[in-house]
Amino acid sequence: MATDSLVSTDIDYTQDGKQIGVLRVPQSFNTAGWANYFIPIAVIQNGSGPTVLLSGGNHGDEYEGQVTLLNLVRDIQPEQVQGRLIVLPMLNRPACVAGTRLSPLDGRNMNRAFPGQHNDTITGMIAHYVSYTLLPQADIVVDIHSGGRTLQFLPSVNMHELANQTQMSEMVRAATAWGAPYVFIYADVAGGGLLPSYAESLGKITLGTELGSAPQFGVDMLGIADRGLKNMLRMYGVLTDTPYAPPSPAPQLVAAPESADYVMAPVSGIFEPFLEMGDPVEAGQKLGQIHSTELPFADPVPVHAQTGGILFGRCGFPLTQQGACVATIVRPYTLT
Amino acid sequence: MATDSLVSTDIDYTQDGKQIGVLRVPQSFNTAGWANYFIPIAVIQNGSGPTVLLSGGNHGDEYEGQVTLLNLVRDIQPEQVQGRLIVLPMLNRPACVAGTRLSPLDGRNMNRAFPGQHNDTITGMIAHYVSYTLLPQADIVVDIHSGGRTLQFLPSVNMHELANQTQMSEMVRAATAWGAPYVFIYADVAGGGLLPSYAESLGKITLGTELGSAPQFGVDMLGIADRGLKNMLRMYGVLTDTPYAPPSPAPQLVAAPESADYVMAPVSGIFEPFLEMGDPVEAGQKLGQIHSTELPFADPVPVHAQTGGILFGRCGFPLTQQGACVATIVRPYTLT
Amino acid sequence: MATDSLVSTDIDYTQDGKQIGVLRVPQSFNTAGWANYFIPIAVIQNGSGPTVLLSGGNHGDEYEGQVTLLNLVRDIQPEQVQGRLIVLPMLNRPACVAGTRLSPLDGRNMNRAFPGQHNDTITGMIAHYVSYTLLPQADIVVDIHSGGRTLQFLPSVNMHELANQTQMSEMVRAATAWGAPYVFIYADVAGGGLLPSYAESLGKITLGTELGSAPQFGVDMLGIADRGLKNMLRMYGVLTDTPYAPPSPAPQLVAAPESADYVMAPVSGIFEPFLEMGDPVEAGQKLGQIHSTELPFADPVPVHAQTGGILFGRCGFPLTQQGACVATIVRPYTLT
Amino acid sequence: MATDSLVSTDIDYTQDGKQIGVLRVPQSFNTAGWANYFIPIAVIQNGSGPTVLLSGGNHGDEYEGQVTLLNLVRDIQPEQVQGRLIVLPMLNRPACVAGTRLSPLDGRNMNRAFPGQHNDTITGMIAHYVSYTLLPQADIVVDIHSGGRTLQFLPSVNMHELANQTQMSEMVRAATAWGAPYVFIYADVAGGGLLPSYAESLGKITLGTELGSAPQFGVDMLGIADRGLKNMLRMYGVLTDTPYAPPSPAPQLVAAPESADYVMAPVSGIFEPFLEMGDPVEAGQKLGQIHSTELPFADPVPVHAQTGGILFGRCGFPLTQQGACVATIVRPYTLT
Amino acid sequence: MATDSLVSTDIDYTQDGKQIGVLRVPQSFNTAGWANYFIPIAVIQNGSGPTVLLSGGNHGDEYEGQVTLLNLVRDIQPEQVQGRLIVLPMLNRPACVAGTRLSPLDGRNMNRAFPGQHNDTITGMIAHYVSYTLLPQADIVVDIHSGGRTLQFLPSVNMHELANQTQMSEMVRAATAWGAPYVFIYADVAGGGLLPSYAESLGKITLGTELGSAPQFGVDMLGIADRGLKNMLRMYGVLTDTPYAPPSPAPQLVAAPESADYVMAPVSGIFEPFLEMGDPVEAGQKLGQIHSTELPFADPVPVHAQTGGILFGRCGFPLTQQGACVATIVRPYTLT
Amino acid sequence: MATDSLVSTDIDYTQDGKQIGVLRVPQSFNTAGWANYFIPIAVIQNGSGPTVLLSGGNHGDEYEGQVTLLNLVRDIQPEQVQGRLIVLPMLNRPACVAGTRLSPLDGRNMNRAFPGQHNDTITGMIAHYVSYTLLPQADIVVDIHSGGRTLQFLPSVNMHELANQTQMSEMVRAATAWGAPYVFIYADVAGGGLLPSYAESLGKITLGTELGSAPQFGVDMLGIADRGLKNMLRMYGVLTDTPYAPPSPAPQLVAAPESADYVMAPVSGIFEPFLEMGDPVEAGQKLGQIHSTELPFADPVPVHAQTGGILFGRCGFPLTQQGACVATIVRPYTLT
Repeated sequence: MATDSLVSTDIDYTQDGKQIGVLRVPQSFNTAGWANYFIPIAVIQNGSGPTVLLSGGNHGDEYEGQVTLLNLVRDIQPEQVQGRLIVLPMLNRPACVAGTRLSPLDGRNMNRAFPGQHNDTITGMIAHYVSYTLLPQADIVVDIHSGGRTLQFLPSVNMHELANQTQMSEMVRAATAWGAPYVFIYADVAGGGLLPSYAESLGKITLGTELGSAPQFGVDMLGIADRGLKNMLRMYGVLTDTPYAPPSPAPQLVAAPESADYVMAPVSGIFEPFLEMGDPVEAGQKLGQIHSTELPFADPVPVHAQTGGILFGRCGFPLTQQGACVATIVRPYTLT
Repeated sequence: MATDSLVSTDIDYTQDGKQIGVLRVPQSFNTAGWANYFIPIAVIQNGSGPTVLLSGGNHGDEYEGQVTLLNLVRDIQPEQVQGRLIVLPMLNRPACVAGTRLSPLDGRNMNRAFPGQHNDTITGMIAHYVSYTLLPQADIVVDIHSGGRTLQFLPSVNMHELANQTQMSEMVRAATAWGAPYVFIYADVAGGGLLPSYAESLGKITLGTELGSAPQFGVDMLGIADRGLKNMLRMYGVLTDTPYAPPSPAPQLVAAPESADYVMAPVSGIFEPFLEMGDPVEAGQKLGQIHSTELPFADPVPVHAQTGGILFGRCGFPLTQQGACVATIVRPYTLT
Repeated sequence: MATDSLVSTDIDYTQDGKQIGVLRVPQSFNTAGWANYFIPIAVIQNGSGPTVLLSGGNHGDEYEGQVTLLNLVRDIQPEQVQGRLIVLPMLNRPACVAGTRLSPLDGRNMNRAFPGQHNDTITGMIAHYVSYTLLPQADIVVDIHSGGRTLQFLPSVNMHELANQTQMSEMVRAATAWGAPYVFIYADVAGGGLLPSYAESLGKITLGTELGSAPQFGVDMLGIADRGLKNMLRMYGVLTDTPYAPPSPAPQLVAAPESADYVMAPVSGIFEPFLEMGDPVEAGQKLGQIHSTELPFADPVPVHAQTGGILFGRCGFPLTQQGACVATIVRPYTLT
Repeated sequence: MATDSLVSTDIDYTQDGKQIGVLRVPQSFNTAGWANYFIPIAVIQNGSGPTVLLSGGNHGDEYEGQVTLLNLVRDIQPEQVQGRLIVLPMLNRPACVAGTRLSPLDGRNMNRAFPGQHNDTITGMIAHYVSYTLLPQADIVVDIHSGGRTLQFLPSVNMHELANQTQMSEMVRAATAWGAPYVFIYADVAGGGLLPSYAESLGKITLGTELGSAPQFGVDMLGIADRGLKNMLRMYGVLTDTPYAPPSPAPQLVAAPESADYVMAPVSGIFEPFLEMGDPVEAGQKLGQIHSTELPFADPVPVHAQTGGILFGRCGFPLTQQGACVATIVRPYTLT
Repeated sequence: MATDSLVSTDIDYTQDGKQIGVLRVPQSFNTAGWANYFIPIAVIQNGSGPTVLLSGGNHGDEYEGQVTLLNLVRDIQPEQVQGRLIVLPMLNRPACVAGTRLSPLDGRNMNRAFPGQHNDTITGMIAHYVSYTLLPQADIVVDIHSGGRTLQFLPSVNMHELANQTQMSEMVRAATAWGAPYVFIYADVAGGGLLPSYAESLGKITLGTELGSAPQFGVDMLGIADRGLKNMLRMYGVLTDTPYAPPSPAPQLVAAPESADYVMAPVSGIFEPFLEMGDPVEAGQKLGQIHSTELPFADPVPVHAQTGGILFGRCGFPLTQQGACVATIVRPYTLT
Repeated sequence: MATDSLVSTDIDYTQDGKQIGVLRVPQSFNTAGWANYFIPIAVIQNGSGPTVLLSGGNHGDEYEGQVTLLNLVRDIQPEQVQGRLIVLPMLNRPACVAGTRLSPLDGRNMNRAFPGQHNDTITGMIAHYVSYTLLPQADIVVDIHSGGRTLQFLPSVNMHELANQTQMSEMVRAATAWGAPYVFIYADVAGGGLLPSYAESLGKITLGTELGSAPQFGVDMLGIADRGLKNMLRMYGVLTDTPYAPPSPAPQLVAAPESADYVMAPVSGIFEPFLEMGDPVEAGQKLGQIHSTELPFADPVPVHAQTGGILFGRCGFPLTQQGACVATIVRPYTLT
């Protein structure tokens, strides 16, 4: 239950207009005896319509969502809204400030901490507040990710494959409205406790994204995020500044349903890719090779694809470690 | 239940006389394969009377309680006691040794870890032993705090405001017996899991203190702690060396019941105070300003009081961080 | 239940032959967005016979088990087996790679983490997989330890004293088959959550070992481990390469049942031992003395034995810390 | 020579008016490939008169000088000046930002790094720029210190005892103009390489200060710094806003010329003082006692004064370490 | 002098054929009492011709040179060479292994450590060996860089502007032979002690490169490095596998001669670029804006270009710090 | 020159009797503003005779010398001495306290820091004081080492091979007097700056030792150190408690003159030795094999001897790193 959350805020979720504030999360420091950590939040509400929960900075080293949502809050006026936007541009702000995927305060991955507990470490306390106070108020949930420091992706809006076909069809429709090049159906190969999984389990229209990587951060990627998000909001009538226009061309629907589609590094070292993003891949093909940093003149270790399709994701930093995902391979997907 | 505690000790809580020993708390180190961490404990028992649990070092950087209790154990002889003193002068000894608020072994705040679990990290294992083995034996609980490195306070004995008026009246009576300048009723604005809250919830006569700050540690502050504690023990007849004498002048009863009484830094930087401790404050008044360490010549950010009263607490180190308490404002309080 | 484990593997526990692979344990890194940590595993199965679960590297700085089990997997062919060997040579591989007792990833002692939880930190996730997927399949459980960096022991196969006499007699019989100089019955003085305790509680034939210390790692100690393990496997008919031959001379059965048998350092400093391993000890005898590193010319603090017997274990590094075990004293033991 | 400094700036030291800028100090980071670290600087110049070099933040945890100088730069207008003020409010800004005495970037004490080298680590590069570019331009040098986190002092303006009587008399005259309670002549007992020593060796009128300690930072201490500095500037005619008025009462001139006046902790532990600041001290008197954190119930170690006078300085944090200065004792001093 | 280097090797620089080995650099570790750190080196020599010194991994997080040179050593056979290649693919191997710009062993930037000293920390010892043993043997020096984690660049071969026109013309000719899109003349704005500066000062034909950034590491960038380096070697006749063909189109010659061409972040925060790489820039134009991570909803700080040209470099990670280079602007350059 | 040392002491090197004190080495800490680090020293002087400088704890993790010298200072009375003993039992006390080879304060190896500089980091300041104040007063220099955490050795007294035959013969005579099993002539393969090298270069009778390893620390090794040191002191008439008796059997004189006698690990991993200490070795023989911690089931990498003799030293911890010495091979040596 949310009533037991130790997080407090001056935001009134029922009030019309644009409110900007913080969630105050209790946190003990050696350098601050009585302290709260501030998580920025904004609420824009007007008229009637769905509630959309928008988050960025779930992983601290992914800035596309952070900047898109900060600019959105600055740009959008209450009179342009029908419904409610609840915006958390820096969900894991300790990580955003540090430029790291994980929170430096407790070492945790926010996207493995859902639904959290009320007396959890800070990452779990934030997750718990989102899970029990914010998600129940939301109809649509958007959690904006990108490759950050360690991964890169062809720009996509994404989701899991769900058993509930109605929910999933609607989610694909919402994702398509963004007009990003791809709508991507992914599987979890590195643990549970994701924000989107928890939101999906509550039946919410839930969208994630993967947009480039840290150094691809720029005009083009931010444009995809900004235009896509606004178009989806227009489709649902939440944003009324401009009529909704279906994107053209329509995004391509792709999926990586098998764990073998996520190629893990067999050894640590320098991954030299043999393919560029978007290249076709055949099962068995060499995707690249890994050079040892201890015996660098030794023969590199080849990395083979086990499945075919196109190269959709790649590691974002040449030095990789055993067990890290160096390639993601997708194939066209059709809604059943 | 306490019977499942992994903590062991040679202390016999039922035995008369003065016993000095340790709690042995299992802890794994890379430098010590089979090891226990020792938490010092003393028990002084004689005749009949209440059991008083005395703790210092709940926060490691607060040495007033540690030194007061160490000297108390050296000074008091069993024949001066009617009842039982259980003394934990360094409750979070890992933090005391490190000179930090939080335990360096698990990064935790002991005063947010109650009641703890038997298979917890070390801070929680100690809390669990206190909660389930020691607190049930106690009638009176005193947890001596001060401002440590990061806060400073006008000297006070303190407590929460309780729903149970009988318990609270008795606690105020006990607090008053110390003769510290103030008796202070505080609210929690930075989380739960406090030792005093747990003791209060068990119906114990529970007192905390806030005594100065790390560099104010000296003859005067230690005198307030030592004289006050002994006087309270005399009032309850537990210490019989000298008759109880009501303190003169009587302490002033003050409270900071609203979260707005605890002024949090809006930004990180150097907090320059405009008031000294004890100065009167009006709502809306500038309490100080915060200088940026990145753009130091830029205009400082003012910090305003939202409530009026007197300045009771202030940050104990000029460099502050967003969300840290830089000022505490109290007003006179009357028991209902 | 194991069905909720987030750990995955390509190993098929029902398949004949020799399989070599990994357990993939989800783990988030700042340097690897989607990642698994690999724990090596091998399964050798043939014909019918008991299942033996063999683990090394429960503590990362103990390499005897790691090397013995790696060589065993290389040496033994399926046709030499009747039954099944499940081999985890580096149970806490993060610690093995770091050369530390505890996992550098979560700071935890694997041998205090059983039975673990499915959404635990990495050490607990591995423990959970062992507890709920592997242990239920096992008849015999062997967890190979040595003194590592911080302790040293006379070579032994060991176990707790169990209430179930049948189980314990069989365990002593299995331990005796190794032919190590000692079979050692120990007590827990530094916490719970051990792999062997959990396995014993399931009624498994459970053996541990203590073999020397990090620098005694060599031909002789590895020989004791290798010959002993194989002989025990031959006794149970799981290894059929050579007939079982009872060891000669038979190991000596010893025990340290009292907490006083585990002598903890009263202070930190340099422990100068007065006895060599295996020397007889009388209660009250000086076992050594501890030199202060702050006031080194001050009188050293003597360390006395409280019980008598022979010196069976000693700290493995001269610099010791308060509360660390500096000596273990055993006495002959007879099965009741 | 300064011409080889790698430090650059847009400040023109010959230009009239108020300039605010930075020194750009080259520094390599893993997080910033081509980078400079900015040290704030201001120059206020008008008419003719001496050049005064003013620095704060030589030690990062001493904020009195930082705030006084930041406010001075904001307050003073060029038309109020005859001569030139060169102001470095955060000399060791990396340490100021971290709240530490030493630079977190190279672990060095700026006040042990003079005169520095052009290809030094960052602390030495800054020292080198000050030594070879700024000090040669200065007539008067003021380096504002306080006790910071670890020491506390009665408020004083200070200097070394110099062989050059003319220089020293003038320095005492300048110090007296501040009107702080004390003018303090100190000796170096913890190394060389101080900014003031180097400035003194160049024949500059050189003043330091010691003003309270971190938590005494407040209205009173900042007032002493601000009023004192301005009064001295008025005496020299550099500040013309108000006529110079000799302070009343005149400061007391005291000295601690012997190394025995600086009492070093014989052991690490909690220093319990037996005297308050300003109390008279006799040689041989107990100044306090040190409680062990490992054996806290053991007898504390007494700390004796070897010389007499008054208690002028004390350690600023109760937990002290062997060899740290726990007390400074001064006696009246007369200029010869 | 090189004769006093403490670095040893089994490589014989006068021997024909392909030799692969290591430089053994003495280094003390807590984990290895007598130890050397191995820096990989290869020498390929045949017939007569110039000596080319090739280095990669000067900055550890730049892998383009490392992989290109490792593959070059594998691919090229002695009979394809006329002259000598001395190849150091991982000059600062401690940094390459860590994936960081700076050495984790001494925190130093190899490209600020030249020419080094024989009893230096490890980075300086390697620099000293290169400076006094290898560079004197070389005619042509190539040090392959890229943007690494923190910068990104349009692909270029680069150099300083030199006073010696003959040397510089030859260097431009050599750079042009690579056929990378740009030949880039840069200025130093973040310190001295660069490998190329030292090599240039010895009169060597000295080339650097800047090739993309960490996540642009892939088939295209590695192709530019590999084809370019080989083409240059063919032009000088050192590589004889294929005749030299002048690149078409010829690279564009550009320069950023002024310190204002290197735009430093005025504040720390998230840099949102308004231009993509290669876009034209006018002096005064907004290049982007920086969002605060502490007050994210506050107005972003704009970053303006001071000079015009095209956007040639940009920060490689969105989170930037005050003083870090966020943009590099170049203009066409003509050899005089 | 020593006259510029910043190190101070109350010890009077010319005074008869037994003095115990400290060297005060200035050192700046964030936790102690004005501080010295104390290095323990004792001087025992009586009558006339040589001056012997005795040091332990040059490497902090080697406790044999520390304990032997602490006990020696306690045991020996001035009247038993003819000449002078200057004893530094914990030369690198910061490392001794930390249990590490290198100083935790500056990361340096004391035995690579000679002769040091007066304004050096702390390790170099101590070395400088020893080099310029103590060594010039000494006739005989003994620096007691052992294998510590990372190496183990057959017990020996050792030295370099010197060009000066007279000096070397005398040194062998002095070494032989100890009666340790071996006198060992070693070569430097991991850098310069050793205390013994510097003392040898001054013509001093200079002895080192290598005695076991951290866990072999015990009655036997300490006995070899204590008896040997005293016997050598008796031979020179400095210790007069008992007449000198030549050791029987005489130590064996061995040497490892070639760099190939020091076998460095070709890769990192777990070194499994195939020989025990003292076993004969033939050139080309497999000394052991190294198991990968990343691919543990892969074939181990063999480690071959390049020279023959006997196995004299071995790595002291199973986990080794590339370039670390895993084996030292000696052959009989004859003085020329």
